[in-house]
Amino acid sequence: MKAYKEMSRDELLTLKAALEEEYKEEQAKGLSLNMARGKPGFSQLALSMKMLDEINSSSDMRTLLGNDTRNYGDLDGIGECRQLMADMMGVKKNNIIIYGNSSLNIMYDTISRSVTHGVNGSTPWCKLDKVKFLCPVPGYDRHFAITEFFGIEMIPVPLDNNGPDMDMVEQYVNNDAAVKGIWCVPKYSNPSGISYSDEVVRRFANLKPAAEDFRIFWDNAYCVHHLYEDEQDEILNILDECEKAGNPDMAYMFASTSKISFPGSGISAIATSETNVEFIKKQLTIQTIGHDKINQLRHSRFFKNIDGLKAHMAKHADLLRPKFEAVLAELDKELAGLEIGSWVKPRGGYFISFNALDGCAKAIVAKCKEAGVVLTNAGATYPYGNDPKDSNIRIAPSFPTPEEMAAAAKIFVLCTKLVSIDKILESK
Amino acid sequence: MKAYKEMSRDELLTLKAALEEEYKEEQAKGLSLNMARGKPGFSQLALSMKMLDEINSSSDMRTLLGNDTRNYGDLDGIGECRQLMADMMGVKKNNIIIYGNSSLNIMYDTISRSVTHGVNGSTPWCKLDKVKFLCPVPGYDRHFAITEFFGIEMIPVPLDNNGPDMDMVEQYVNNDAAVKGIWCVPKYSNPSGISYSDEVVRRFANLKPAAEDFRIFWDNAYCVHHLYEDEQDEILNILDECEKAGNPDMAYMFASTSKISFPGSGISAIATSETNVEFIKKQLTIQTIGHDKINQLRHSRFFKNIDGLKAHMAKHADLLRPKFEAVLAELDKELAGLEIGSWVKPRGGYFISFNALDGCAKAIVAKCKEAGVVLTNAGATYPYGNDPKDSNIRIAPSFPTPEEMAAAAKIFVLCTKLVSIDKILESK
Repeated sequence: MKAYKEMSRDELLTLKAALEEEYKEEQAKGLSLNMARGKPGFSQLALSMKMLDEINSSSDMRTLLGNDTRNYGDLDGIGECRQLMADMMGVKKNNIIIYGNSSLNIMYDTISRSVTHGVNGSTPWCKLDKVKFLCPVPGYDRHFAITEFFGIEMIPVPLDNNGPDMDMVEQYVNNDAAVKGIWCVPKYSNPSGISYSDEVVRRFANLKPAAEDFRIFWDNAYCVHHLYEDEQDEILNILDECEKAGNPDMAYMFASTSKISFPGSGISAIATSETNVEFIKKQLTIQTIGHDKINQLRHSRFFKNIDGLKAHMAKHADLLRPKFEAVLAELDKELAGLEIGSWVKPRGGYFISFNALDGCAKAIVAKCKEAGVVLTNAGATYPYGNDPKDSNIRIAPSFPTPEEMAAAAKIFVLCTKLVSIDKILESK
Repeated sequence: MKAYKEMSRDELLTLKAALEEEYKEEQAKGLSLNMARGKPGFSQLALSMKMLDEINSSSDMRTLLGNDTRNYGDLDGIGECRQLMADMMGVKKNNIIIYGNSSLNIMYDTISRSVTHGVNGSTPWCKLDKVKFLCPVPGYDRHFAITEFFGIEMIPVPLDNNGPDMDMVEQYVNNDAAVKGIWCVPKYSNPSGISYSDEVVRRFANLKPAAEDFRIFWDNAYCVHHLYEDEQDEILNILDECEKAGNPDMAYMFASTSKISFPGSGISAIATSETNVEFIKKQLTIQTIGHDKINQLRHSRFFKNIDGLKAHMAKHADLLRPKFEAVLAELDKELAGLEIGSWVKPRGGYFISFNALDGCAKAIVAKCKEAGVVLTNAGATYPYGNDPKDSNIRIAPSFPTPEEMAAAAKIFVLCTKLVSIDKILESK
């Protein structure tokens, strides 16, 4: 394939005319496809339906320790569910607190509590003039929304295939006491799909924060969300590494079963040092009498143990893989060599991150929408919705069928080509 | 019966010796009964077991509007569940936001958000030197724990059989801009069991707060929790009254199904003006992608509608009534005329509130514990756990069986007599 930038003005104009015809044909099909959010597809939801049979009116409602899940008690979660989440997150049961249905809610709570009450005895952030968070980019818009909501200044940090730019992270964290946290999706990152290298994780654990209340917000959302049985990323355990480095309390790890069982009806957990667990429980005991233990029992009995959960994730992978591959095949076939975009083939997670020519992302997303394909808003993967290069686009292939994904990907590459040609023509 | 204070020193000493023998006999039985918390009993939990059959692997998981409850969406709750909670709380569906499993958590969130973000645009409370809450006493310890956690100064307001002392409430609210809220359990109050009179509710609605961000925290926890079919308290609807009085945004109403279906696995909701609903949803959209809609569907299908829910509550009443009556019968039989304590016979709710002679509550609770009967800590019904008269004791009759309740009540009256005799002897 000849790179577009090597083409003459005339070549580009001829190509554009042909592509515009194609676009009109696609538009005429009247598609309506949504690739905006990491929403499991119908077939994925069906995988967990049998979980709903685990608990019925004749079930023994007691935990392994004999506690009645139907009544008050077990503030930090029932034992077997804490064990399951601990095994999934690679930590000990004592490091786990089970929350409600949403790990995002735990992250919100954790920041909210830091704002009103500080961190393990530090000054509440609301009493400080300035609080800053580092935000590896591209990243997860809902993380950025939380820090923005609390008036926390967000500083973008570039992410490469090994993780965030650690020179920059160290520079900020070790010198600026206003930097209180960093958002990380360390495995199958949202949206780039990359996983942090061992060196990156170790450099995180060995930070020497200027702020005593600096915390790593380690959103391990995709810890068991592989696409391939034989090609899985493994990352180092941040809690273990922090402990080794003499920073035992520096990291909060988050996870949920939202994309394992049911989004909105799953189980979420935080994993952190026992010191942090004790501090968090002091707030939790004020906030609630306990979370939904019947749902914890339902999950524990359905998955049985970490092996059961992993076997379940292999079924998810079988359903997701063809969708990812449909997009990747189209990108490879239609865009390779044109030098109008780059992407990484992820081994897990929920997204494909596409970097268009600078200044093209918004126009591509808009053009896709006109042809019935809705993508995440361009810019959403950056703090304040502001991608300074207007280049990154997040593709979420999970919800449509593989056939729909192929159709959507066709429109996506077509729009990318058309917008890129216009951009290149501007400078010819 | 002769009042203890009318008895001579000798009479009291003779009586005391006899009662001490009785106490020793009771103690020797080695009872272990807990009347500390408003925990539903086993037979009550059994009433809702069939709910667990409503949703299974072959269920249609869609709402009446066709939304899939298994996936993301419906941030403020599924329509049929909002309708059910609206009917239960006596409001319109548009005034309802469904949350997770705990109304206490909604109250915590509501205060936390006011601390960090203010109320509908007012100054965040964390930026103010002083924030105060009025606390009708005796009241609910978990309410007081939330305001204490946020450093809010709590001002006790006496409660009589019609509700809080409204002269005092008006005096504070209408003149002190630091007073931002008041905790109310308006129906079958925790712990006193009384319900607010129409005049009290109207005076609440007609407050002219000095603070624009003053809010009434109307915890309607026992809105359908009657003990008698034919003797039910009815209170005026605070949202309606506030609207009539030109204060449409002044009240937040809270409720849950914790004591209708399962504590910890129920549904909770806030009801408030549409203006407030919009403001709250702005935070909620940052905090979570949505609550557990499968559990909302389970509840909606089990109860079907408000009539189904009311029929269910009649079954709860049948189970709770004998327990309340066992305590009340013992109090009447053993303490009437002795002038060492007073109590109100509640028509609903979860508690019996007992006022001992001043300075006796802690000693009675301690003496009960030594005989195997655990009561709520004396003082818990007051802000900071400080009952200045050391008089109020909360009795929670729901968890033990009626027979156990009778045994526990026997010990309670015995301890009350013994401690009261000691108190009276001090002044003889």
